[in-house]
Amino acid sequence: MKNFEFCNPVRIVFGKGKIADLDRLIPENAFVLVLTGGGSVKNNGVFDQVTMALKSRKWEEFSGIEANPDYDTCMKAVERIKEKKIDFILAVGGGSVIDAAKFIVAAACHNGSDPWDIVTGQAKIKTALPFGSVLTLAATGSEMNAGSVISRRSIGAKLPFASEKVFPRFSILDPETTYSLPSHVSACGVVDAWVHVLEQYLSHAIHAPLQDRQSEALLLTLLEQGPKLMENPNDYDVRADIMWCATQALNGLIGCGVPQDWATHMIGHELTAAFGLAHAESLAIVLPALLRVRKEHKKTKLEQYGRRVLGVDDAGDPAEAAIVATEVFFKRMGLGVRLSDYGIPLEAVSMVADILDRRGFRLGEDRAVDGAMVRKILVMASVPENL
Amino acid sequence: MKNFEFCNPVRIVFGKGKIADLDRLIPENAFVLVLTGGGSVKNNGVFDQVTMALKSRKWEEFSGIEANPDYDTCMKAVERIKEKKIDFILAVGGGSVIDAAKFIVAAACHNGSDPWDIVTGQAKIKTALPFGSVLTLAATGSEMNAGSVISRRSIGAKLPFASEKVFPRFSILDPETTYSLPSHVSACGVVDAWVHVLEQYLSHAIHAPLQDRQSEALLLTLLEQGPKLMENPNDYDVRADIMWCATQALNGLIGCGVPQDWATHMIGHELTAAFGLAHAESLAIVLPALLRVRKEHKKTKLEQYGRRVLGVDDAGDPAEAAIVATEVFFKRMGLGVRLSDYGIPLEAVSMVADILDRRGFRLGEDRAVDGAMVRKILVMASVPENL
Repeated sequence: MKNFEFCNPVRIVFGKGKIADLDRLIPENAFVLVLTGGGSVKNNGVFDQVTMALKSRKWEEFSGIEANPDYDTCMKAVERIKEKKIDFILAVGGGSVIDAAKFIVAAACHNGSDPWDIVTGQAKIKTALPFGSVLTLAATGSEMNAGSVISRRSIGAKLPFASEKVFPRFSILDPETTYSLPSHVSACGVVDAWVHVLEQYLSHAIHAPLQDRQSEALLLTLLEQGPKLMENPNDYDVRADIMWCATQALNGLIGCGVPQDWATHMIGHELTAAFGLAHAESLAIVLPALLRVRKEHKKTKLEQYGRRVLGVDDAGDPAEAAIVATEVFFKRMGLGVRLSDYGIPLEAVSMVADILDRRGFRLGEDRAVDGAMVRKILVMASVPENL
Repeated sequence: MKNFEFCNPVRIVFGKGKIADLDRLIPENAFVLVLTGGGSVKNNGVFDQVTMALKSRKWEEFSGIEANPDYDTCMKAVERIKEKKIDFILAVGGGSVIDAAKFIVAAACHNGSDPWDIVTGQAKIKTALPFGSVLTLAATGSEMNAGSVISRRSIGAKLPFASEKVFPRFSILDPETTYSLPSHVSACGVVDAWVHVLEQYLSHAIHAPLQDRQSEALLLTLLEQGPKLMENPNDYDVRADIMWCATQALNGLIGCGVPQDWATHMIGHELTAAFGLAHAESLAIVLPALLRVRKEHKKTKLEQYGRRVLGVDDAGDPAEAAIVATEVFFKRMGLGVRLSDYGIPLEAVSMVADILDRRGFRLGEDRAVDGAMVRKILVMASVPENL
């Protein structure tokens, strides 16, 4: 086990009817900015539950946070906060709205330099406004971590930042808020959580038997409950399991003391940026290809993953069988596993590899994934499945 | 899944050499009271590492916190803190020292009523001095939770209290600090952690597949690494696994959204109070007996536990086979599993049952364990193993 530090102070308030607890969780004299995305929280009753729970508190809404939240939109919220002297932010939505809140609470307290410096890491966050979240989509884990990804379309950038100052004070996780999600969005959440676990689990092998089993606990539960979600979208137990899995897939715990990969995410981000694929769609394409290219390096863990999670037996090539079983799961959740499934041309291979090459990234738990290996991975992601 | 709330802000700093990080974790201008138990931290080098890391900070030692920390001892530390205007407490030791610190930091800020009211729950803790811990024994989990058990020998009391105000600010977990523990103490820590998990896992069955698997992850790791600890007490990996398991066995996570039992602990406490058994020794006696008496009620989970953790097959009476396998594990760790293993007479049965009867406790996840059932459990704990 490697040395590690773990600290996660987010208060999780989980269950049916818990939005009403906002009254207990937000200071009585707070002036609240309710941050929302599109209109879905207006249509499914969540926004009404929120405003009712705020009681006599002064509040305003700031709506229109987009998927892959944009810097310019966030800065409009920051302006409003400063102008109106708002002192508490409540993010109501999925990972994009929560990610936006993390930037906004830091930028609202930022002085001196360009707020974009927060995202690039050139400015250290010294303080931030307090914020909480009401989660309406089980996927990114942003509700219980200190990370955020902000896009700035005007300069073609999409960058992550992290700071303990932007942990949510609390996150309310009511599984019922996810009943009304489109089926494909729910499925993407399951795949997103799955790949979050694999980025922290499927590295070269080191001695960390507890972390391995904690990752497998999440995977086995997602594997078991994910397909049930497709059949019974209004099953409370299933929604609750998926929600608690997605939160824990990226709250830092399973990554304690182990090597982490994240190359699938970095390559996937470029596919999203270039071709508009949903985040999980990009992951479902890149992951199997990456695992094939890195099969020897990850062999021990791939075989363990196959045996313990996917029920793969030891005959033949168990590492390859684990990759195939992963693809079967992704397809069962309705996602494609090849670039061609989304009509992405072969030219994408060189284009994305060139972008990562120019950025000088060396990805993977051992920094071995360079431009040439990205090219190999994307070629692999273009090979038809029956070959 | 039941509704739940989870919040655990303790910063875990884990690994070899991490005691040096105290310099980063404790405010530079703090006046520190270093709280210790007996002399073991003086003999194994831990105390020297601590005082070196404190650098130029002003500090004093308060030593002599006993196993099952006593109210009167703790109050002496409180007096010293008030007299010297000490403003940071550093607990260096196992669960007893950390439990003592939790009471001391609250009592040092308590005004108005008798500080014993903190322990009885008659006074709410409004504020507490900040404290951190350097853990030297993997067992109780106190290093990452908000609970404490304080004894008051002068009135024959031993009571638990809990408050979010007494979470440690940080806990340093360096597995190397546990190398020098006596073998039986290490073994007791493993059994203590094991029973902490079972109290939250082995209830009647409800739908909580992730929590089940997270509990099983801890059990499988303890089962695998525990016996290795007996053979290779200086194996870093094994010590690290056990330490991280014990912390997570009682940090609140696996108990989220599930019923919890804790009757084994309550009955075990009385055996400890009356006969001086070590905490884990009492648990290893009570648990198998309790599981036998409650076999029908806990059948589904007992069978799952047997199948997934202990490798028990489905033939015959798999619930009973799981209990027997549990006893085998405890004995492998060198603990007894019957009252007679520690020479405790049959009269103990009535005595302990009467005490719990008088207290009017109704124990277990369904409050079904009354005095009569405690009697049955302790009779069961007296039945020779070969019957």
